[in-house]
Amino acid sequence: MKAVVHVFLKPGVLDVQGKAVQSALHGLGWGDVDHVRVGRVIEFDLAGEDAADGKARVEAMCQRLLANPVIEGYRVEIAP
Amino acid sequence: MKAVVHVFLKPGVLDVQGKAVQSALHGLGWGDVDHVRVGRVIEFDLAGEDAADGKARVEAMCQRLLANPVIEGYRVEIAP
Repeated sequence: MKAVVHVFLKPGVLDVQGKAVQSALHGLGWGDVDHVRVGRVIEFDLAGEDAADGKARVEAMCQRLLANPVIEGYRVEIAP
Repeated sequence: MKAVVHVFLKPGVLDVQGKAVQSALHGLGWGDVDHVRVGRVIEFDLAGEDAADGKARVEAMCQRLLANPVIEGYRVEIAP
């Protein structure tokens, strides 16, 4: 099965990368862009057929490695 | 309206970040993880109501700033 993990900074945490992108877009003439947030997506294949078990394993990976739970939130999607 | 841009390395381009994550996951005991790819997601608000016009503008932003079209592909989603 295939796992897709979205990792974003929690609301309230200053997103400096987002601020930099927003400022660059404004500089290029797109002044109507606002609230830019930059996150990561991690996609991978996972052995096994049980989606619930797969999701639990991927959430453990997020806690241990893929996200920083202090400042980042994550969303896990499992596809067959 | 809200724009979501997914940026991924093109197939065939070596994803060193993905390789590093894969190797770390294997080291932590998740040896069944394979084909890890790491990408970016950029979310932002955009003025205007016309989704087709918004999509065209966001694609121009991808070409100019958000992605490196030589090695990266992107997907644009527009939500009201």
